[in-house]
Amino acid sequence: MNIIDIIAKKRDSKELETEEINYFIAEYTKNRIEDYQAAALIMAIYINGMTYRETKDLTMAMANSGDILDLSELGTNVVDKHSTGGVGDKVTIILAPLIASLDIPVAKMSGRGLGFTGGTADKIESIPGYNTEISEKEFINNVKNIGISLITQTLNLAPADKKIYALRDTIACTESIPLIASSIMSKKIASGANKIVLDVTCGFGAFMKNINDARELSKTMIEIGKLANRETVCVITNMNEPLGFAVGNSLEIIEAIEFLKGNMPEDLKQVVLELGAYMVKLAGKGENINENKEKLLGNIENGKAYNKFIELVQNQGGDIEYVRDINKFKKAEIIREVKSTNEGFVQEINAEEIGKLSCELGAGRKTKNDKIDLQVGIVLNKKIGDFVSKGEKLATIYANDIEKALETETKLLAIYKIGKDEIKEKTILDIIE
Amino acid sequence: MNIIDIIAKKRDSKELETEEINYFIAEYTKNRIEDYQAAALIMAIYINGMTYRETKDLTMAMANSGDILDLSELGTNVVDKHSTGGVGDKVTIILAPLIASLDIPVAKMSGRGLGFTGGTADKIESIPGYNTEISEKEFINNVKNIGISLITQTLNLAPADKKIYALRDTIACTESIPLIASSIMSKKIASGANKIVLDVTCGFGAFMKNINDARELSKTMIEIGKLANRETVCVITNMNEPLGFAVGNSLEIIEAIEFLKGNMPEDLKQVVLELGAYMVKLAGKGENINENKEKLLGNIENGKAYNKFIELVQNQGGDIEYVRDINKFKKAEIIREVKSTNEGFVQEINAEEIGKLSCELGAGRKTKNDKIDLQVGIVLNKKIGDFVSKGEKLATIYANDIEKALETETKLLAIYKIGKDEIKEKTILDIIE
Repeated sequence: MNIIDIIAKKRDSKELETEEINYFIAEYTKNRIEDYQAAALIMAIYINGMTYRETKDLTMAMANSGDILDLSELGTNVVDKHSTGGVGDKVTIILAPLIASLDIPVAKMSGRGLGFTGGTADKIESIPGYNTEISEKEFINNVKNIGISLITQTLNLAPADKKIYALRDTIACTESIPLIASSIMSKKIASGANKIVLDVTCGFGAFMKNINDARELSKTMIEIGKLANRETVCVITNMNEPLGFAVGNSLEIIEAIEFLKGNMPEDLKQVVLELGAYMVKLAGKGENINENKEKLLGNIENGKAYNKFIELVQNQGGDIEYVRDINKFKKAEIIREVKSTNEGFVQEINAEEIGKLSCELGAGRKTKNDKIDLQVGIVLNKKIGDFVSKGEKLATIYANDIEKALETETKLLAIYKIGKDEIKEKTILDIIE
Repeated sequence: MNIIDIIAKKRDSKELETEEINYFIAEYTKNRIEDYQAAALIMAIYINGMTYRETKDLTMAMANSGDILDLSELGTNVVDKHSTGGVGDKVTIILAPLIASLDIPVAKMSGRGLGFTGGTADKIESIPGYNTEISEKEFINNVKNIGISLITQTLNLAPADKKIYALRDTIACTESIPLIASSIMSKKIASGANKIVLDVTCGFGAFMKNINDARELSKTMIEIGKLANRETVCVITNMNEPLGFAVGNSLEIIEAIEFLKGNMPEDLKQVVLELGAYMVKLAGKGENINENKEKLLGNIENGKAYNKFIELVQNQGGDIEYVRDINKFKKAEIIREVKSTNEGFVQEINAEEIGKLSCELGAGRKTKNDKIDLQVGIVLNKKIGDFVSKGEKLATIYANDIEKALETETKLLAIYKIGKDEIKEKTILDIIE
């Protein structure tokens, strides 16, 4: 087998054999295929596409290219949850204790982020003392003891995906559905899940800009799941505006804690309940989605989810006083309110633009080794559909640099589109299972 | 301008601007664009194609990426000739003195070859003393003094083409018409020609395996020529079987010398006359192709072409006694006749296979630094359409290694397809101007 023949085959729009895909991934991981050969093949895949079978094979080959987390001790219904990315996404931090509070084991590995804000692992580190970098053994023991653990990715999961992902970025091949689908699914499979609920975000702040692409990505991942024997459900959610109100690391943790205390922003509530209800279903703990939502809501109201979060934080060394009293979180030096210069209904708050502003303030990393500022970010006071008067507060900027704060204010005013017509956006756009 | 946007544009099948093509070539030549980015762009070009305008821009950008030979001292009708490659191609060695004998200046730079045999420069070095590596100044002076010079490529011509050509080879992107066309035309333009006659070979031993591809390549090169203000004519010639009888460096020189003495194999004669007649026409020395062929034939018969060759060889330090008496050429140690095991008409002699055999014998280079053996090769005694009896001589092997000679014999017998039906192949397949 040789890589030139494999490239030629995909160049001519032919279907690659399992062995050919395995060969490419194994040899490329070992640096025995050149980057320029991988680049040519990936461009051919981008343009000519892949069948579901090829995409599944690519997924499995990438999943098997490094460590595989073995969660078999936890049973056969370990459900993982993943989002294709967005702005203001604190769903994992809420869902993990909420699901665990229903006696479903939660063994969650979350990434650090590039771009808008940190990832879930960065966000939870806003709680002083919280240790996201415990060993694999301790991680599994925690789940066995208290039913939950949330850590960062310490294992060498899907290194082939890491190489290909970095390469795609430099050769204009990020937005390919088979490549996105296999990248996501390979990491989920390597991290031990046998059931997967995917939050497929759609809109300005997401990879998928329109519902058709989001549906195609969802179908592809579900087909991969079927072929790879990992039951998968996709919930397509609106990511035109940020999710919830808070964007920024500790700001989002505070919003998550408030949520667990019962203060639930409407869009965030819908996303948490929808994803959660399917996680419960896949875990074999309830067939009826509406009943599952009721159970989840019940465990918010009765405090069980909140208590599970306290247990999680305590178990991983975090200071639970911060959870009990969110006023303990260190605040950014500059807190600046942005007042509306117009009157009318909010019609658009481009999530991607808000994400970029948050990154400029220091909440996100531009390159892998950047340090992130956990305090800074933006809290939206008005969301799409809200009425706003002239001079009323639109948003609050949390900054540690006055120039950046002022710049953010100007840009924020331009991002908020205000007009005469009342706009109503749906949060849950579709469910594909 | 940045390379990722350029890649994305061609990925989406959009037409690249002149400035974008210039940027890619300039930056890639300076190693400021990575090989993997160039590979992705080239794959996108392979799959999505290029317009004539884009192909012309790519050609000019590559031509301008290094030295440009200035032949303006020789006038505005300097005609160059180029073949897209084949087996047994000694046409340049014949045409150069033949054209010069009609008082048309011939300033010819020829390459060394990879693959089947050496290139024209290697072949002519079979004549002891012949110096192909004289300076640019001496080269032009020779043309001014005696009307002809034939050297190898000493200048840094079209380095961008060299880089891209090497890359294409490793990423399954050799067989792309815009890429082949721009590669050929960029080198011709860089070597100073303002009129170009192209021998577009077609068949087993050529890049273009069928007449449709050969026509498309021809049309592309003619359009590039028009847009780049270089009048171009393409003669599509048959390369199913080798051209003439001899394959191998000194063996081909001997056949060329014999041709100039009037011993002309029929297919070789047709190719030489057709290409030559168009060169005369483009040089402004005769509008009528048939009359031009007569003039060319006349200068073979009256010895003027042969005398011009003697003059060329002498002027570049070659020993003209070898030209006068071809028996002086050193022979290979093993000369082995291959006898037919069947009776019938020769129906196929796959030129590519013959080329590979000749390379195995040592006549060609497998990698750039290989030394070639000037003596070895194959002389065909029967060509397509010839009748052969059992035991009659099919071909003669010239080898310096007995094992290789025996292996070649076995393979040659398999390459010669002999059958009942008399086959007649055309030599000149089409002319596109």
